[in-house]
Amino acid sequence: MAGNSFGESFKVTTFGESHGEAVGVIIDGVTPGVEIDEAYIQVQMDRRKPGQSSVTSPRKEYDEVHILSGVFEGRTTGTPLFVVLYNKDMRPEAYDDIKLAFRPGHADFTYLHKYGIRDHRGSGRASGRETAGRVAAGAVARKLLERRGVSVTAYTKEIGGIRCARYVEGESERNAVRACDPEAADAMIRKIEALSSAGDSCGGIVECRIGGVPAGLGEPVFDKLDADLAKAMLSIGAVKGIEFGAGFEAARMLGSEHNDAMNSQGFMSNHAGGILGGISTGADIVLRVAVKPTSSISLPQQTIRISGEEHTIRTVGRHDPCICPRIVPVVEAMACLVLEDHLKRQAALHA
Amino acid sequence: MAGNSFGESFKVTTFGESHGEAVGVIIDGVTPGVEIDEAYIQVQMDRRKPGQSSVTSPRKEYDEVHILSGVFEGRTTGTPLFVVLYNKDMRPEAYDDIKLAFRPGHADFTYLHKYGIRDHRGSGRASGRETAGRVAAGAVARKLLERRGVSVTAYTKEIGGIRCARYVEGESERNAVRACDPEAADAMIRKIEALSSAGDSCGGIVECRIGGVPAGLGEPVFDKLDADLAKAMLSIGAVKGIEFGAGFEAARMLGSEHNDAMNSQGFMSNHAGGILGGISTGADIVLRVAVKPTSSISLPQQTIRISGEEHTIRTVGRHDPCICPRIVPVVEAMACLVLEDHLKRQAALHA
Amino acid sequence: MAGNSFGESFKVTTFGESHGEAVGVIIDGVTPGVEIDEAYIQVQMDRRKPGQSSVTSPRKEYDEVHILSGVFEGRTTGTPLFVVLYNKDMRPEAYDDIKLAFRPGHADFTYLHKYGIRDHRGSGRASGRETAGRVAAGAVARKLLERRGVSVTAYTKEIGGIRCARYVEGESERNAVRACDPEAADAMIRKIEALSSAGDSCGGIVECRIGGVPAGLGEPVFDKLDADLAKAMLSIGAVKGIEFGAGFEAARMLGSEHNDAMNSQGFMSNHAGGILGGISTGADIVLRVAVKPTSSISLPQQTIRISGEEHTIRTVGRHDPCICPRIVPVVEAMACLVLEDHLKRQAALHA
Amino acid sequence: MAGNSFGESFKVTTFGESHGEAVGVIIDGVTPGVEIDEAYIQVQMDRRKPGQSSVTSPRKEYDEVHILSGVFEGRTTGTPLFVVLYNKDMRPEAYDDIKLAFRPGHADFTYLHKYGIRDHRGSGRASGRETAGRVAAGAVARKLLERRGVSVTAYTKEIGGIRCARYVEGESERNAVRACDPEAADAMIRKIEALSSAGDSCGGIVECRIGGVPAGLGEPVFDKLDADLAKAMLSIGAVKGIEFGAGFEAARMLGSEHNDAMNSQGFMSNHAGGILGGISTGADIVLRVAVKPTSSISLPQQTIRISGEEHTIRTVGRHDPCICPRIVPVVEAMACLVLEDHLKRQAALHA
Repeated sequence: MAGNSFGESFKVTTFGESHGEAVGVIIDGVTPGVEIDEAYIQVQMDRRKPGQSSVTSPRKEYDEVHILSGVFEGRTTGTPLFVVLYNKDMRPEAYDDIKLAFRPGHADFTYLHKYGIRDHRGSGRASGRETAGRVAAGAVARKLLERRGVSVTAYTKEIGGIRCARYVEGESERNAVRACDPEAADAMIRKIEALSSAGDSCGGIVECRIGGVPAGLGEPVFDKLDADLAKAMLSIGAVKGIEFGAGFEAARMLGSEHNDAMNSQGFMSNHAGGILGGISTGADIVLRVAVKPTSSISLPQQTIRISGEEHTIRTVGRHDPCICPRIVPVVEAMACLVLEDHLKRQAALHA
Repeated sequence: MAGNSFGESFKVTTFGESHGEAVGVIIDGVTPGVEIDEAYIQVQMDRRKPGQSSVTSPRKEYDEVHILSGVFEGRTTGTPLFVVLYNKDMRPEAYDDIKLAFRPGHADFTYLHKYGIRDHRGSGRASGRETAGRVAAGAVARKLLERRGVSVTAYTKEIGGIRCARYVEGESERNAVRACDPEAADAMIRKIEALSSAGDSCGGIVECRIGGVPAGLGEPVFDKLDADLAKAMLSIGAVKGIEFGAGFEAARMLGSEHNDAMNSQGFMSNHAGGILGGISTGADIVLRVAVKPTSSISLPQQTIRISGEEHTIRTVGRHDPCICPRIVPVVEAMACLVLEDHLKRQAALHA
Repeated sequence: MAGNSFGESFKVTTFGESHGEAVGVIIDGVTPGVEIDEAYIQVQMDRRKPGQSSVTSPRKEYDEVHILSGVFEGRTTGTPLFVVLYNKDMRPEAYDDIKLAFRPGHADFTYLHKYGIRDHRGSGRASGRETAGRVAAGAVARKLLERRGVSVTAYTKEIGGIRCARYVEGESERNAVRACDPEAADAMIRKIEALSSAGDSCGGIVECRIGGVPAGLGEPVFDKLDADLAKAMLSIGAVKGIEFGAGFEAARMLGSEHNDAMNSQGFMSNHAGGILGGISTGADIVLRVAVKPTSSISLPQQTIRISGEEHTIRTVGRHDPCICPRIVPVVEAMACLVLEDHLKRQAALHA
Repeated sequence: MAGNSFGESFKVTTFGESHGEAVGVIIDGVTPGVEIDEAYIQVQMDRRKPGQSSVTSPRKEYDEVHILSGVFEGRTTGTPLFVVLYNKDMRPEAYDDIKLAFRPGHADFTYLHKYGIRDHRGSGRASGRETAGRVAAGAVARKLLERRGVSVTAYTKEIGGIRCARYVEGESERNAVRACDPEAADAMIRKIEALSSAGDSCGGIVECRIGGVPAGLGEPVFDKLDADLAKAMLSIGAVKGIEFGAGFEAARMLGSEHNDAMNSQGFMSNHAGGILGGISTGADIVLRVAVKPTSSISLPQQTIRISGEEHTIRTVGRHDPCICPRIVPVVEAMACLVLEDHLKRQAALHA
């Protein structure tokens, strides 16, 4: 059954394989009359693309944004806004050696079991390239959210065990790992470079902060705001966990510590991460996602062929030794999609 | 907009407030011809109810299962299976004192902002009592899953900082905290009793293990199996985080450590938690959720009244000092709902 | 897969079999803060019930409305509004003779082929009794629509070949067949009584007029307002066709006749039936549905048993010789559901 | 809210305006492993395109099918199958004169009221060109249906009051109006040519016959097979009504006439049109749709400008004087979408 759509009132549907002809997205439910152009979307797209620094894949992706519908004379029309990104740097031959064996940590094995057929070129639909459509859609949502003062900012909190000690405003867009702490960023970069040389990879933690959210967003009981954000984030390939506010630390706190007291100025702390009972409190929404180390490493690994035979594989190719910096804009995009959808749903409820 | 339904091919819709007349669930998409009766559902319902031991709320909930439709002569008919649980131990007067003030850590504040109106009696729709309908639906899903050999087992892994050192098969249903380790269970019980006497509460971690899942379940790209499980779990009131397999630890591992190698017997480890690229691998699905400390504590807390005036509140009532033991069956129920839905979706894809 | 829900932003899910314990509906997405009570819903329910006159089934259905959730202190809370109608006049034994044979024109045959199991008592889920939940939900939608000046009125236009020659305001609620023309009503009643005595039945046409709809409702391209109304109406058991405005007559008109010209006062005619391009024009929405003759007749009919053996059947029981008068409130209810849903969707679009 | 998707288990989402850069469709839920190529889809696309004869618009639409994803080495992969059709014969200047006035019978007025903004070029999203994406998706569904022996055939039954007297197998693809009767076809063509010369247009009736459908498809109670087909057909721009089997005639029949008796060979008639209680009987599904006369006529018509001022308009351009022949493949496409979706849903129910 169909699983390539996300959202209800603001709904996106993506398509495309990494080595097919194009990837892209249909965005349905766009507020009409809002100014938008390809350049605005391109800015977000460029944050996602590989080849930005020594710590990301040197692969080139020509993520040139084309809007083919839904915008007329510079404004959204309310009809489906369609963005396509044609693939160009396709080197299918580079993947021929993995056609017959499963790469550890990859979706090769599961796709074949699900579908009985598999587009093995560069992971096909399971490739990170699929997220390009999401980032395009997220940019449109961000544009709509800006009108209401909602801001969404993600950044690397931790990489390879190195944790940011402080949050410096704007810093994350100034260093190659998108970390919020410049000193930690330096250490992270050195760590990644060393791992990369050794043919290995590492994971990390990305934090996202959503400001300006009015109190009252989120739908009890299943479509809680945190439930929808959790689904959104876990739908990103390399994400293996999510927590809100105090998160897993909350499991070790007492009720008297964890409860956010209130005074006439509002909440006196934010252990809840801006969400209570699945509904926004008006405080910043704070969430963190656990990013696994990139599966594609050049060290030899034990695996099996499709035939069942044991086999040692080395994944060649141009992979990111740590995906955190490139996941940052995807996390933001998914957060934007959830927020815009829930703003629309709240309007419907009160209509 | 409507947020009280969950699932696509196997869809549940719940209704009811804690101190209204009833709670319950409509289950749509039930496979016809399967034997089911109220007694089977009642077993799961009884695991969820309060008053089971010294560490849970002494409140009585008469969760007597009534099937009003969808079953004929002991078998499911394929039409909506409706389960209602009439409320009986309603003491609305006990909640009159909280009518005008927001309880810290509760959804009081957010519900009022969302709806502009609030049923303050025992948290209304935000009450844990809403999960009774989920557990009933989960029991029906479990019945369907049993036919295929899928098993779902959750248990307490950690409470108040005390962590289970070992997993003893069947132990979790033998102790009051549903911990998988008998020695840890004793320590947890003592800790909870002490906190309860002090008017405080604590949180914990619940782990869930799903066995017998065939490889190939889960829908790329948004409706990944882990994304849907994450949404399902975060839709449970007190849950503040989730992780799969190595989870947040994966953020500190190298690719060479985290990747699950394969040999001819299958996966040699399970850091992925049974899911790769959003699709089941055939290995056990393993997830953990972070449960926050119960918000309702009798220690005095600083808050405000609806009027904005500052106020000190003590939440009286019959609350669970730690909700983990009672969340265990809810976690299982939600996992059952997700699994049955995805099995049906996989059948549709290949039809 | 689940097909018992209708609507997106205003969503209803019904349950129940005619001879089970209850029928009812969960209404999700109800605007909070609106006054509603059981008496308001009961008025609509009483229009649907059998036993109102000589031309309807003498069967008694105790459609006593019970709201079990979603209303607090006389106002909607925004949480699921649940209405249950307990069945009381169940005489399953009366249906035992049809357990083993298919009644012509009934869903007996198709339900058995769909599900492989069938609740044969009084048509089970396929019974007209299922519409009780729809009428309850429609009453809630009507209450919400009233606030905006939207009115929904259906009436019998034709029965047994006798067509109303004129429209008399308010007449349809004054005669037993709910016809809009008193003289035609008399003729229809005589015709039905004669057919009833002869053990036969007849069909008719019900017209629905929706006033006060603002221009701009309806979603291109699939969820057009007329497309959703068509689905709503064809989901009513005995309905075999629908047309809007000039309808099937449009097929015989010229473009120069059919196009509704405009002047500064607005549309100069309404051949479009109030909808252009799937979106409301602001003129009255006018639709007509074809209602087939009641399938249950006492004349002998040729059929087969489940075993395949040929058989002659006479459907005994207390059936309506013409269902039009009782379909009128169901048509109104479905129209209300569609309108309220689209009003909410329009609000979401512009949020 | 989003209304550009159709179906649940087999879901299509279309995009595109008539004079934008492209139209197309994402098809989600495609059975993997099925052979399909652009040529197969192109055949259906060519049946829809204008310029096929003297009775259709001389406008050229280069509906060249491009599959950009979801097919690998000639087989479907189960991932979204994306088809794009680039627009080429765009002459926006031809539409500049209608920028400021509403064309009678067109969606100009309603789109502006819905969105507050309008792409006036060639009707924008309301153009018949949007159906190109549907026909592409329908071709994919048809391919899947063929494997099970389901066939879908539509043809013109009546145009401008001229009704086919007989059904000649295969005839409808041999004449320019796609009528099932060669003599009637000749009369229809002469009628259309005369009306076209006079600057006028006419409507008609298209019939669709679906064979090989197994008994048991369709979901009670809202997602009945006829309800979903009705929605599908009314979502086509010019359709103003639909009927199944005896349809509106059923309103004038007696129960003893209308009921389809059964003997050991099956149903002895098919007044039900192949559907009882919303579920397929196994007999042919037969439906007819009323097609209004084309709105675009060159005769002068009274209208208003956006400013409110009265105005006389003549719609210039290259329009179809009767849209029936080109609606035939669209009706088939929509029927294919509904059937494939319900086949998948039935598989999910029994999984």
